[in-house]
Amino acid sequence: MRKQLTIGLFGFGCVGTGLYQVLNQSNLLDAKIKRIIVKNKAKKRIIAAEHFGYEASEILNDSEINVVVELINDSDEALIIVREALAKGKHVVSANKKLIAEHLDELIDLAKQNKVSFLYEASVAGSIPILRNLEEYYNNDTLSSVQGIVNGTTNYILTQSNYGVSYADALQKAQELGFAEANPTLDVDGFDSKFKLVLLIKHAFGLSILPENVFNYGIRQIKNQDVKYASEKDYRIKLFARAEKIGDKIIGFVAPHFIKKEHVAYQVDNEFNAVIVEASFSDRQLFLGKGAGSFPTASAVLSDISALQFDYQYEYRKSDKESNTEFTEDFYLKIYLASSDVDALKTIPFAQIDEIFQSKGYNYQTGYVKFSDLSKNNFNDLEKLFFAVLPEPFLNENEIVNSKQIKEDLINEIV
Amino acid sequence: MRKQLTIGLFGFGCVGTGLYQVLNQSNLLDAKIKRIIVKNKAKKRIIAAEHFGYEASEILNDSEINVVVELINDSDEALIIVREALAKGKHVVSANKKLIAEHLDELIDLAKQNKVSFLYEASVAGSIPILRNLEEYYNNDTLSSVQGIVNGTTNYILTQSNYGVSYADALQKAQELGFAEANPTLDVDGFDSKFKLVLLIKHAFGLSILPENVFNYGIRQIKNQDVKYASEKDYRIKLFARAEKIGDKIIGFVAPHFIKKEHVAYQVDNEFNAVIVEASFSDRQLFLGKGAGSFPTASAVLSDISALQFDYQYEYRKSDKESNTEFTEDFYLKIYLASSDVDALKTIPFAQIDEIFQSKGYNYQTGYVKFSDLSKNNFNDLEKLFFAVLPEPFLNENEIVNSKQIKEDLINEIV
Repeated sequence: MRKQLTIGLFGFGCVGTGLYQVLNQSNLLDAKIKRIIVKNKAKKRIIAAEHFGYEASEILNDSEINVVVELINDSDEALIIVREALAKGKHVVSANKKLIAEHLDELIDLAKQNKVSFLYEASVAGSIPILRNLEEYYNNDTLSSVQGIVNGTTNYILTQSNYGVSYADALQKAQELGFAEANPTLDVDGFDSKFKLVLLIKHAFGLSILPENVFNYGIRQIKNQDVKYASEKDYRIKLFARAEKIGDKIIGFVAPHFIKKEHVAYQVDNEFNAVIVEASFSDRQLFLGKGAGSFPTASAVLSDISALQFDYQYEYRKSDKESNTEFTEDFYLKIYLASSDVDALKTIPFAQIDEIFQSKGYNYQTGYVKFSDLSKNNFNDLEKLFFAVLPEPFLNENEIVNSKQIKEDLINEIV
Repeated sequence: MRKQLTIGLFGFGCVGTGLYQVLNQSNLLDAKIKRIIVKNKAKKRIIAAEHFGYEASEILNDSEINVVVELINDSDEALIIVREALAKGKHVVSANKKLIAEHLDELIDLAKQNKVSFLYEASVAGSIPILRNLEEYYNNDTLSSVQGIVNGTTNYILTQSNYGVSYADALQKAQELGFAEANPTLDVDGFDSKFKLVLLIKHAFGLSILPENVFNYGIRQIKNQDVKYASEKDYRIKLFARAEKIGDKIIGFVAPHFIKKEHVAYQVDNEFNAVIVEASFSDRQLFLGKGAGSFPTASAVLSDISALQFDYQYEYRKSDKESNTEFTEDFYLKIYLASSDVDALKTIPFAQIDEIFQSKGYNYQTGYVKFSDLSKNNFNDLEKLFFAVLPEPFLNENEIVNSKQIKEDLINEIV
């Protein structure tokens, strides 16, 4: 039953090295790494130079190699490798969320045509087996939402800021610890979380959506006052990737959220990731684990390789159906919008204002805004503004009108 | 690809009713419940009497029915039903942990012989898909431990006791809320947790062990002073089912544990369950969800039924191997042992005593004991004693000797 796996590995960075150690340290799998392709000939590595090659063709043209594990940073290069590997009938395991999110449907088709598996559990939430669970366990369409903390770097920075560390210092610390890249934009502006969200949406709801059509807002504009506001209200700020079914439509975005003390994600700190799945009947489920790091990610890659022994592949059952699941930005959410400049708050029209606070140098208002009014803006670059989502349900047009009416009635009564 | 499922349902209690509603409310599955067998003809039910039958044969002899869902309380009766259903080539979904834990190997063989699936995700930790994850995702033997809170009733009672509610009052409240049975022994004495642990051990480590060979100690003997001790040390008491690999041997038991504030299970309250999986490379993973209740359990049954559409079955890959995995009680653990009667503490020989406290009516000592010295005793019935496991690593014989030596050396130095 078990298949003999001969692996060609692209990339020998943090995760690749981890994988090599994991496979070598443990006699777990009937799988050997035959060749490793790297870029830099000069770099010192933990194993002898003879294991390395420098041309992709050394793997791609080796017919004995039946599994390609792609762990390089450059997603354009990775795309070429993955395409060719699939086309040549090799199974592919990848952790490259950007590549996969941007080309998922093409790569799924390619894998199908060539009757091979394309697995990428490590690309979402590191060691947490969330894709596998969405595929296999939650395959009966009762899912109502999938959301969570899927980026360890930003969660580490946000955790530090709860301890009073400034954003700049926390980022630097994260970089020193190897949690953050030299250029942290993908992480701190919420792109990395968005790529992962795109994959979650595909596996949870069967909907293909391109990353460019999903709003992402990160944590770069958080000011000390915002952290203080959160802590006064017993909230913690977490960067949430969030997908939800509203009626028969799907919404999805990445943004900072105020999380209540009672919420299961409140305590998820540092480099930990957490994914919360809500289904109509099973209530809330939380999956918690390390989202980053050499071994946690390598372990997810390892589980994919191990599954290949049994010819495992994603079935995308939710995508099979003749559903006209659509993506929508047509809903209302309650936010906290803050700025040093009170006029800047007018950038976003509020459908309903609940609170206004003004002072010298710090102003905010809370209330419901239409999501499409928010998502028009490139918040990552609006230095004067910061917003975070408040822990209130999303509303649709009717509910907003009703809620306004109730408020006005109340005011009239009080008057 | 999808199989048409025709279900015969045994039992229409809390979970059975939940399942009926789940299947009816949602048009999720191409599955219909053809017949429901119940015991009590007189009982009023939410659906018309015509759906019900009173003889097992109505389902077992109906060749159109290809799935038997067994949700009755009586495990002896359930065994007869499950055996016959499997023998007749019907797939079986069950939530009956006692039945399954006591007869697992026989039932696995029977299912294999008859080429049908025998699934029981709902029997362990309600809505948490832990068996599926151990089977599918952690199939490469890197697992080092599986542990957690798998009984909602006791966790509810323990949570209440943290708020100062006495054991008796908390139990009564749990019974009123429907979390606890009229005869709560299976829950509060740790039997229910043990049955689940037996299933976890099988799926995590491939080891078959009978429940009668696993030590279980519940929460019935907890005194107010013990809760106070815990709270002074910033611990919470949780009933943990615990399985761990020590060397090439497996240990497993159920007992109250003092859980530190920093531990992921500290905040798992009320009827929630949590299972923590540790693997060599992925670090700690937590699965959290509702462990009891009509819908959470029904949702797990539903996921099993849904998996049958695709001919899913457990593979028991870890059991396949020619491993001589053995169960052992030969290890040391650090406990807190308390009694109103100071002499009663002598019941358990300590290999190493770390602290002694004595006062009128409340005495305790902490230190390392050999597990087999503990497990000889039927603690559930020792009214004078209470013990809880302290958050310290398990040690083997050598480590105990070394640790004693170090201590003595230290004392000599101080003197």
